[in-house]
Amino acid sequence: MTFAAITVALMVGAFIERMKFSSWLIISILWATFVYFPVAHWIWGGGWLSNVGTLDFAGGLVVHETSGLGALVGALLLGRRKEPVMIPSNLAIVALGTGLLWFGWFGFNGGSALGINPVAISAAFGSTLAALTGGLTWMFAEWILFKRPTSLGFFTGIIAGLATITPASGFVDLGASIIIGFLGGIVCFIAVVYVKNRLKYDDSLDVFGVHGVGGMLGAFLIALFAKPEIGEAKGLFFGGTSLLAPQIIGILAVGIYSIVVSFIIFKVVDIVIGLRVEKDEELEGLDEVVHGEKVVHELMKY
Amino acid sequence: MTFAAITVALMVGAFIERMKFSSWLIISILWATFVYFPVAHWIWGGGWLSNVGTLDFAGGLVVHETSGLGALVGALLLGRRKEPVMIPSNLAIVALGTGLLWFGWFGFNGGSALGINPVAISAAFGSTLAALTGGLTWMFAEWILFKRPTSLGFFTGIIAGLATITPASGFVDLGASIIIGFLGGIVCFIAVVYVKNRLKYDDSLDVFGVHGVGGMLGAFLIALFAKPEIGEAKGLFFGGTSLLAPQIIGILAVGIYSIVVSFIIFKVVDIVIGLRVEKDEELEGLDEVVHGEKVVHELMKY
Amino acid sequence: MTFAAITVALMVGAFIERMKFSSWLIISILWATFVYFPVAHWIWGGGWLSNVGTLDFAGGLVVHETSGLGALVGALLLGRRKEPVMIPSNLAIVALGTGLLWFGWFGFNGGSALGINPVAISAAFGSTLAALTGGLTWMFAEWILFKRPTSLGFFTGIIAGLATITPASGFVDLGASIIIGFLGGIVCFIAVVYVKNRLKYDDSLDVFGVHGVGGMLGAFLIALFAKPEIGEAKGLFFGGTSLLAPQIIGILAVGIYSIVVSFIIFKVVDIVIGLRVEKDEELEGLDEVVHGEKVVHELMKY
Repeated sequence: MTFAAITVALMVGAFIERMKFSSWLIISILWATFVYFPVAHWIWGGGWLSNVGTLDFAGGLVVHETSGLGALVGALLLGRRKEPVMIPSNLAIVALGTGLLWFGWFGFNGGSALGINPVAISAAFGSTLAALTGGLTWMFAEWILFKRPTSLGFFTGIIAGLATITPASGFVDLGASIIIGFLGGIVCFIAVVYVKNRLKYDDSLDVFGVHGVGGMLGAFLIALFAKPEIGEAKGLFFGGTSLLAPQIIGILAVGIYSIVVSFIIFKVVDIVIGLRVEKDEELEGLDEVVHGEKVVHELMKY
Repeated sequence: MTFAAITVALMVGAFIERMKFSSWLIISILWATFVYFPVAHWIWGGGWLSNVGTLDFAGGLVVHETSGLGALVGALLLGRRKEPVMIPSNLAIVALGTGLLWFGWFGFNGGSALGINPVAISAAFGSTLAALTGGLTWMFAEWILFKRPTSLGFFTGIIAGLATITPASGFVDLGASIIIGFLGGIVCFIAVVYVKNRLKYDDSLDVFGVHGVGGMLGAFLIALFAKPEIGEAKGLFFGGTSLLAPQIIGILAVGIYSIVVSFIIFKVVDIVIGLRVEKDEELEGLDEVVHGEKVVHELMKY
Repeated sequence: MTFAAITVALMVGAFIERMKFSSWLIISILWATFVYFPVAHWIWGGGWLSNVGTLDFAGGLVVHETSGLGALVGALLLGRRKEPVMIPSNLAIVALGTGLLWFGWFGFNGGSALGINPVAISAAFGSTLAALTGGLTWMFAEWILFKRPTSLGFFTGIIAGLATITPASGFVDLGASIIIGFLGGIVCFIAVVYVKNRLKYDDSLDVFGVHGVGGMLGAFLIALFAKPEIGEAKGLFFGGTSLLAPQIIGILAVGIYSIVVSFIIFKVVDIVIGLRVEKDEELEGLDEVVHGEKVVHELMKY
C-alpha cells in the first residue's frame, strides 16, 4: 500500500500550479489501477516479467520508472506553466524533506529484504552510500559547470542516488553502491540540465529526470554489478551474462506500457473533464483560487 | 511518561497568545497530577473503570477526552483572543508536523500492544487507514460546503481520524478502522465548524473539536465494532452487548471528572496569579513581550 | 561512519557566513582523518586511552569534545562576522531540528549499547531525562537573568543536556541522568552567556559552549555518578575512586590533541588557500555569491 501511494505521489510533482485538483484525484485512482498495479504484479507478483527473470529489488522499475514516465507524459500533455523555472521558496524545508525522504527510504530499500537480515543491512548501507555519492556528484557537476555548488543541487543528487540504487540495492555490494550513486548523479544531472532544456517540458520536481532516469539506469546496472554473494544474482562484472536480456526487456516493457497507458489515462481525463485550470486561475494561483486556504478561514470566522 | 507529556502538551493549543506562561507551567503540573494520572489509573492501572470493563486501547479517554475537555474549560475561562480566527502562517510546517505526528502515532497505537505482535500490526495499520479516511472525509466535507478543499482541512481530518481510532485500534479490524476514520472525520468536522461557531470559544488548535470529540466517539465505537478475533472484546455488530454500558460509563465518568477538576484548577490559578496576560501584552504579542525572542539576543550581544 | 559524519558536521556551525566552502571541504577531510579517527581509536578501538581505562559511552570525548574544540580553534582563527549575534530566522525550523536531533540521539546513545538490552533502554531513557532537565534549566536561567524564557534557550538547553549525558548514558542511572542534565544546562549556559562574551569568539551554533563543554563535563561526571549495576563502572558516589584519573587524563589528552591538531589543520589551509571569503562576498552573503542558489536557477532557465 505504501509503495502504491508513494508512486502516485511522486508523479504529482510534475503537474503543480496548473492541473485541476479534481482531474488529479481521478487520474491518481486510474493510474494506480492501470499502471502501478499491473507492473507491480508483472515483477513482484509472479507475473510475466518475474518469469523472464527481471530483477527490481525495491522499485526502480515498479515505482520510479512508472512514475517518472507518467510524469513526463502528463507534463507534456499539460503544457508548461507561465514561468516554468521556479526558485524554491524555502531551502530549509527542502533540506528537511530530503532528510525525511532519506530516512523513509531505509524502509523501502532495507524493508524490501522482508526481514532483519544481512540483505536488509547491505541494502540500507549501500543506499546511504549511493545517496551521499549522488549528492556530491551533482554538487561538483554544478560547481564545474555553473561555478556554484547549490544546496538544492546537493539535495537533488541525493534523491538521484537513492532512486538509482533502489532496484539494485539488494543485489550489489557497497563498492558498487558508490559507483551506482555516482552514475545516478551524473546521468540524472544530464537529464535535468540538458534533456529537460532541450525537450522543454515543465517538470518542476524533476520526477522524470531524477526518478524515471535513475530507476531505469539502476535497473540496468544490476545486470553489470550484481554480486552472487549479496543477492544470488550474477552480473556481467562477475562473469554472468544472463541478467542483460531480462533487465533490458523489463526496462523497455515497463517503459512502453507506462507511456501508452499513462497517455490514454491523461487523454481521456482531458477530454472528459479537462486537465488544466483556467488561465486566470493559474495566474492568481491555485492555493487561493482552488484550495482557498485563506477563504475557508474567512468563511469559518465567528 | 510520554503519554502524560503529550496529553498536557495537546491542551496548550487552545490557550495560545493570551495565557500567562507561568500560569501554564503551574497548570500543567496540577492538571497532570489531578486529571491525567487518576484517569490513567482508573482505566490502565487497575482502577475502578478497568473493573467496570471500560476499554481504551491507546488513550481515547485517558489522553484525548481529558485533554480535549481541559482545553474547552480553559478556553472558556480564558476568553477569546482579540482576533480568534487565525490563518496558519506556514502550511508547509503544518504538513511536516502532521507527518511527524502520524509517524509518532504508530508508537502510541502500535506500541500499546506492548510487543511486536499481530495486535500491534493491526493497530498500526488500522490507524493509518483511519488517518487517511479522516483526512479525505474532512477535505470532501469542505469541498462540498465551502467549494474548496484545503490542505489544512486535510491535515486536521488526519488528526481527527487518528484521535478517533486511538481507543479502538487494538479491538477492531481494518474495515471497521476505515468506517471509524470516516465517522471521526464527519463528527469532528461538525464540532469544529458548527459547534465552535455556536459556542464561540477560542480553541485555535481545535483540541476539543478534534481530540476531545474524536476520543469520546472512538471510545463509544468500540462498543459497536469490537471484533473478538482482534482484541478479545465483542461489540454490538458481532452480537455483544456487554461493552455498551462500560464504554458509556467510562466516557461520562472521565468527562465529568475532567470538566470539574479542570475547572477547579484553572479557577484556582486564575484567582491566585491570574490566567491571562495584560491587554497591551496580548496586542504586542507574547513572543516579544513574554519570551523576548529578540530581546534576549540583544542582551547577549558582544 | 555516522559518528564520524556528525562530528565533522557539528563543527561547521561555528564557521558560518564567512568560511570558504572549498576550504571547509578540505578541512573536513583532514580533520576527520587526523583528529576524529585517532581519538575514536584511542578510546573505542583498543588504543592507549582504552588501556588507561577512560570511559566514553557514546562520544562525549570522541564526538563532542573534539568537535567543540575544533570549532573554537577554527572560530578564533577565522575571526568574527561583521554582525556576530544572529537572531534565528525561523524558530519553528529550530524546534523541528531539535526534535529530529533528539530522536536521532536515541540512535547514538541507545545504539551505543550495541544491542536491544537493558543498557540500551537505560541509556535512551536517561538521555531523554537529561534533555528535558537541560532544557528546563536553561529556560529558567534565562528567565531569572533576562526576565524572559525563550524557546531558543529551551532548545539549546535540550542539546546541552543531551551532549552532557552522552558519555555517561550507559553508566549512570535515571536519577543521576536528571542531575547530569541539570549540570549540563547550568555549565553550558555559563559557557555560552559569559565565557563567549568574554573571549569574544563568534560561534553561532555554540558548538564549543554546548557540545565541547557538555561533552567534557559529562565525561568527568562518569567518575562521580557511574553506578556498577548499570555499566560495570564504579563512580565516587558509589565508593569507587579508580575512574577519576582515567577520566581526567582522557579529557586533557583529547583536549590538547584536538586543539593542537585542529590548529595545525586550520593554519595550513589558511596559508595554502585561505580560510575566509572576501569582505564584499561576506557582505553580499554566501548563499548568493558562493552557492548562487538563485543564479543557478537563472542559468537553467529554458
